[in-house]
Amino acid sequence: MFKVGRMSQSSVAAVRIQKISGESPIGSDDLLTVEEPLEIRLGFHDGVSRSQQSLSVTMRTPGNDFELALGFLFSEGIIRDYNDVLSVKYCTDGNRNEDHENVVRVELHDEILPDLKRLERHFYTSSSCGVCGKTSLEAVRAVCPPENISTESRSVFSRDIILSLPEKLREAQLVFEYTGGLHAAALFDKSGKLILMREDIGRHNAVDKLIGAGLASGQIPFSNHILLLSGRTGFELVQKSVMAGIKAIASVGAPSSLALQLAKEFGITLIGFLRGERFNIYSGEERITI
Amino acid sequence: MFKVGRMSQSSVAAVRIQKISGESPIGSDDLLTVEEPLEIRLGFHDGVSRSQQSLSVTMRTPGNDFELALGFLFSEGIIRDYNDVLSVKYCTDGNRNEDHENVVRVELHDEILPDLKRLERHFYTSSSCGVCGKTSLEAVRAVCPPENISTESRSVFSRDIILSLPEKLREAQLVFEYTGGLHAAALFDKSGKLILMREDIGRHNAVDKLIGAGLASGQIPFSNHILLLSGRTGFELVQKSVMAGIKAIASVGAPSSLALQLAKEFGITLIGFLRGERFNIYSGEERITI
Repeated sequence: MFKVGRMSQSSVAAVRIQKISGESPIGSDDLLTVEEPLEIRLGFHDGVSRSQQSLSVTMRTPGNDFELALGFLFSEGIIRDYNDVLSVKYCTDGNRNEDHENVVRVELHDEILPDLKRLERHFYTSSSCGVCGKTSLEAVRAVCPPENISTESRSVFSRDIILSLPEKLREAQLVFEYTGGLHAAALFDKSGKLILMREDIGRHNAVDKLIGAGLASGQIPFSNHILLLSGRTGFELVQKSVMAGIKAIASVGAPSSLALQLAKEFGITLIGFLRGERFNIYSGEERITI
Repeated sequence: MFKVGRMSQSSVAAVRIQKISGESPIGSDDLLTVEEPLEIRLGFHDGVSRSQQSLSVTMRTPGNDFELALGFLFSEGIIRDYNDVLSVKYCTDGNRNEDHENVVRVELHDEILPDLKRLERHFYTSSSCGVCGKTSLEAVRAVCPPENISTESRSVFSRDIILSLPEKLREAQLVFEYTGGLHAAALFDKSGKLILMREDIGRHNAVDKLIGAGLASGQIPFSNHILLLSGRTGFELVQKSVMAGIKAIASVGAPSSLALQLAKEFGITLIGFLRGERFNIYSGEERITI
C-alpha cells in the first residue's frame, strides 16, 4: 500500500515586510501561504502498453498532495473507486530537481481504463461551430456520481449545531491564524463533531484534498455529513460534493446561481452566510430542524 | 469594428430563501450572483485554411464577456496586440439555444498565427516522465510581457491615496451590495481616481475583464496605475498584471508566496491587507510615499 497525506514541503513561508499603520513604517516578520504548482499525472494501461498522461496543473498549497490528486481524479469522475488505484507517488526523474515534489503520479491497475473524456472540458479541444458550445458546456454540467455512491441521507442537522460549525472550523484552522490566506473545507457529523478538515490556497483544492482523504480512508460517501466551506459556494464545489455523496453544504459566504441550481437538482441542502447567529437556507430545508 | 462590453445576460438572479436568525425562519427574497460557463474559442488562419479551436471554459458572471475573452487571450500571451483581432462575437448556431451567449469566438486576422503553446499548461498533454514536470511547470512560470509593453513606471503612490482606495472600490461595486458574491478588480491613477473597475464571481475573470477593457480602449500598458483586488493576490493574478504592464498591486487580502516571488522578479510593488488605516508592503516600497 501507499501512504496518503504526506506533507513534506512547507505550507508557510517567512518574509520581511513593512507594516504601515501609524506615521512611520515598521519592519516586521510575516508568514505567507505557500503557493506552488502541482502537476497531476495519470499512469494507466491503454490496451497495448502502459501509458502516462498529464491531466492538470493546479496552483496549490503543498501538503496532502496525494489526497489532492486522488480527490481531483475522483471528483472529476476519472476514477470511480479507490481500488482502481495501484500507487500514488511523487514523480522523480534521474536528475532530481527542486520541482520533484510538484508532480504527483497516480498509477491505475492494468484493467482500469480511465474515462479521460470527463476531462475534456478543461482542455484544448477542436470542435466545429455547428455544435455550438454543446460539447464543452454540457461537459461542465454533466455530473454523475459513481454507482456505488449512496444518494440517501439519514441525517438532519439542528440550527444550533449549524451555528456552532464556523467556530469549530476556526479552532481547527491552525495555519489560517498565521497567514489569513487559506481556504478550508471541513466535514462534520450531525452531532457537530469535526470528522475531516483540509486547507489550501485554492477552494477547489481544499475540497479535493478532503474528498481524497475520504476516498483513501473508505469514508466516502459522505451522505450523512455536512460540508462547511470557509468562502463562497460556486458550481464546481457543489459538483464535487455530488460526486462524494455530500447532501448538506454550508458556507460562510454566498452561493452562486448555478451552485443553487445544481444543489436543487441533486436534493442537496444549501446554506449560505453562516455567520454569528444567522444563516440563510437556499434549498433542502427539510434537512434542518429549528 | 466590434463592440466590447456588451451586457445582455443578467448578472444577478432572484431567489426565495429562508432566513434563520431569531426563533422562526423568515421567508425572504434574495439575489444571487449569476454563474454560467463561458467557452472561449479562437478562429485563426493556420497556414492552409481558417481554423477554430476551443481554448477554455471558465465559470463566470455574465457581462463584459467580450472583454473577458480578449483579456484572457492577452494575459495568457496568445494574442500580443489588439490589432491582431478581427472580430469578437457570440457564437450562434442554426438552432439558437439558451447557451448561445455562453460561447464567445475571437477571430484573428489572417496573418496572425497565435502562440497556442502558451496554453499547454492548462491542458491535457502527453509527456514522458524523463522531463519530469518540466514542460508543464515551466510553462506556469513562464511570464513574458509583449515587447510593446513598457516596463517603466513614473508613478509613486502616497499612503493616504492608498488608504482611500478600498472605500472608492466599495462605492463603485453596485452589484456587490446586493449579492456579496462578486470579486472586483479596479485600476486607479496616482491621484486615486478610479479609471476602470470590473467584477466577476471569479477573481481571475475580473482581472481578465479589466485587461480586456484596457486592451480594447488602448489604455494598456497600465504602468502608471495601481491595481486594487477585493480578495487575495495569487500567482496568476500577478502574472496577468505583468502582461498588462501593471507595476503596483494592492489587495484587501493576503498575497501568496509565489505571488510575492513573481512581483519581486518584475519590480512590482505588492501591498496586502489594505484595511481601515493599515496595509502591509511586501515588495517595491520605493513606489510608496508615507
